[in-house]
Amino acid sequence: MRAGPSQDEIRRQNLGALLRYVHVHGATSRAELTNTLGLNRSTIGALTADLAAAGLVSEGTPKETGRAGRPSLVVRPESARVFAYAFSVEVDRLRAARVGLGGEVLDRRELPRPHGPVAGEAAPLLAGMVKDMHQYAPPGAICVGAGVAVVGMVRRDDGLVRLSPTIGWVDEPLGELLRAELGDERPVAVGNVADLAALAEHVRGVAFGCDNLIYLHGDAGVGAGIIAGGRRVTGHGGYGGEVGHMVVNPGGQPCGCGSRGCWETEIGEHALLRAAGRDGYEGQDAVLGVVDPAARGDAKAQAAVRQVGDWLGFGVANLVNIFNPEMVIFGGTLRDLYLAAAAQVRSRLNSMALPACREHVRLRTPVLGEDAALIGAAELAFERLLADPLDAT
Amino acid sequence: MRAGPSQDEIRRQNLGALLRYVHVHGATSRAELTNTLGLNRSTIGALTADLAAAGLVSEGTPKETGRAGRPSLVVRPESARVFAYAFSVEVDRLRAARVGLGGEVLDRRELPRPHGPVAGEAAPLLAGMVKDMHQYAPPGAICVGAGVAVVGMVRRDDGLVRLSPTIGWVDEPLGELLRAELGDERPVAVGNVADLAALAEHVRGVAFGCDNLIYLHGDAGVGAGIIAGGRRVTGHGGYGGEVGHMVVNPGGQPCGCGSRGCWETEIGEHALLRAAGRDGYEGQDAVLGVVDPAARGDAKAQAAVRQVGDWLGFGVANLVNIFNPEMVIFGGTLRDLYLAAAAQVRSRLNSMALPACREHVRLRTPVLGEDAALIGAAELAFERLLADPLDAT
Repeated sequence: MRAGPSQDEIRRQNLGALLRYVHVHGATSRAELTNTLGLNRSTIGALTADLAAAGLVSEGTPKETGRAGRPSLVVRPESARVFAYAFSVEVDRLRAARVGLGGEVLDRRELPRPHGPVAGEAAPLLAGMVKDMHQYAPPGAICVGAGVAVVGMVRRDDGLVRLSPTIGWVDEPLGELLRAELGDERPVAVGNVADLAALAEHVRGVAFGCDNLIYLHGDAGVGAGIIAGGRRVTGHGGYGGEVGHMVVNPGGQPCGCGSRGCWETEIGEHALLRAAGRDGYEGQDAVLGVVDPAARGDAKAQAAVRQVGDWLGFGVANLVNIFNPEMVIFGGTLRDLYLAAAAQVRSRLNSMALPACREHVRLRTPVLGEDAALIGAAELAFERLLADPLDAT
Repeated sequence: MRAGPSQDEIRRQNLGALLRYVHVHGATSRAELTNTLGLNRSTIGALTADLAAAGLVSEGTPKETGRAGRPSLVVRPESARVFAYAFSVEVDRLRAARVGLGGEVLDRRELPRPHGPVAGEAAPLLAGMVKDMHQYAPPGAICVGAGVAVVGMVRRDDGLVRLSPTIGWVDEPLGELLRAELGDERPVAVGNVADLAALAEHVRGVAFGCDNLIYLHGDAGVGAGIIAGGRRVTGHGGYGGEVGHMVVNPGGQPCGCGSRGCWETEIGEHALLRAAGRDGYEGQDAVLGVVDPAARGDAKAQAAVRQVGDWLGFGVANLVNIFNPEMVIFGGTLRDLYLAAAAQVRSRLNSMALPACREHVRLRTPVLGEDAALIGAAELAFERLLADPLDAT
């Protein structure tokens, strides 16, 4: 219900639009910026000069195009100098990265995660990796903030991890702890790993240009990142996307959440390993230990893949009816399961989803791989910069 | 990725913001508009003058406030003069209304729906009701467009009704047909009834101020209108919200969609009537014919309400885990079922939904009643006006 912006707000909005464009699309000619942003040449020139003075972009001549005439100057994001710190808190490890404007991972570190139930053990390790990477950052480099992806339910307002069954955290103030460890006044943005992987694949991955998508992340648990109409759907408190606790089989197995027959109990790692008679194993290697023999013709492994793949398709069909997405992406260990059971998934989709809801849906695997969580966490941190480029640096 | 707006765009944006504010909030003092919209007094005065010159608002002194000092002028939407035509296509009837700016239903008509399978039979009847109402509109009244709510899946781009099992339509170009019948050059906006009831309850009903909500609409079928982060979630083609075809009971009854155990088969009217031993009846009276005896202590009716109410809660818990909404609204005949089975719904929610996802959720019934579909259809039509007030009239 806000009214239109003031002159100063317009300038900030334009600066943000230009910087976002080169952040997403990479080096771009002034001519293309003029066309795409709907601003005149002199305005583009003035905005570029402001951003360059702040050290956020640089200008130069393009690579040889082979075309006649004077080439339009090219605006490049200062990817090596302007960066965010990105973290990923996972079951078995902690990761940290320095991600440049433009989305490139410039540096990275990894440590095993201490298996205690408090975030206070993880925060100093995450901050320590930052201190180490900081030594290798070029002189004068600008850090615009930090973002974290965590396998758990995150309160949007302050980055409290409400619940992470797989890492055993309950009400852990990860955002606050990490801010204190980093000694930074700026808030550390925290998000769920599936939400942030969805964001990453949307901004610079397989779902680029696709405004309605569901990213499914599987490990021991199952969750989703949902983007509808180009915007993240995270719900009232930030806890949306808990598709793993959609009950699909009322007569099924008890779930750790206290319910029974949750989708997670049918398609999580444990379900696959149990079906294959390998109860007790876990992790991606264990999943591949079923999927690979299935591909080589092992009958028991094949039966397990078919059964669990069938349930995978079952839940996907439900979500397709609810969201009418353009794309469903299978991430984490669901990637391996999907690749082995695509026929079962497609079959369930065809028999259970309404034709209008499924007609344009593409089933895909991520292209950013393990980097998706880090790139998505960095995108969270870049949001502040892109909203107001000159104020945030 | 658009850049900031030009001077002219800002003026249009400000005009739209002011008009939207009085459309939603009714008569508003200049002082409140100045505060809320963040514009100075002279700008508010100029915008109001422009809108008044176009006949969209009027200014006047407020009603006696009892406070000393010169009262701030009040800006009122011209509700009696500026209106949209709104239609509702339902199983048994066709409705049309003239809805004033500000959301008041000024006039209405109703006819039985001809039970043929083509929209070509309905369009002339809908247009006929408009012609009749038009005679009673005040001289010089301004029609800003038309919107339709229909019980079916609607293609967003052109208002084609892809499928409506309950009224038997397949690929019926309702938007085009109605535009031709009305002799209007402007597109007729068409939407699904649950989507538009959600919109109406969001803008001026029980969910006012609530940005994450699910509106469930039940009759023979079951669908949902979903609003997330203040925006309607309708999916890639416009077909999202088909929660009635979320499979909740894999061993359940065959569904008309070709699948089995869809939520609709457990909570639609037919499920309740079947459970109560009243198979063959249908409609709201039939539902009340179960719910009322249950309230009076009829054991068979009570068992039916408990069983179907339990499934209602089951699906709601799934949706709460997926969306983390602030509110779930039970509309159509699900209103009557919910009121009779609130205990079952709440119990399922508590046992199946994750605490973080359900902790702030309020379960509510609509306050706009049967008008919700018409008011939501009018909101669709008003969208164009509010986006650019001086261009649309």
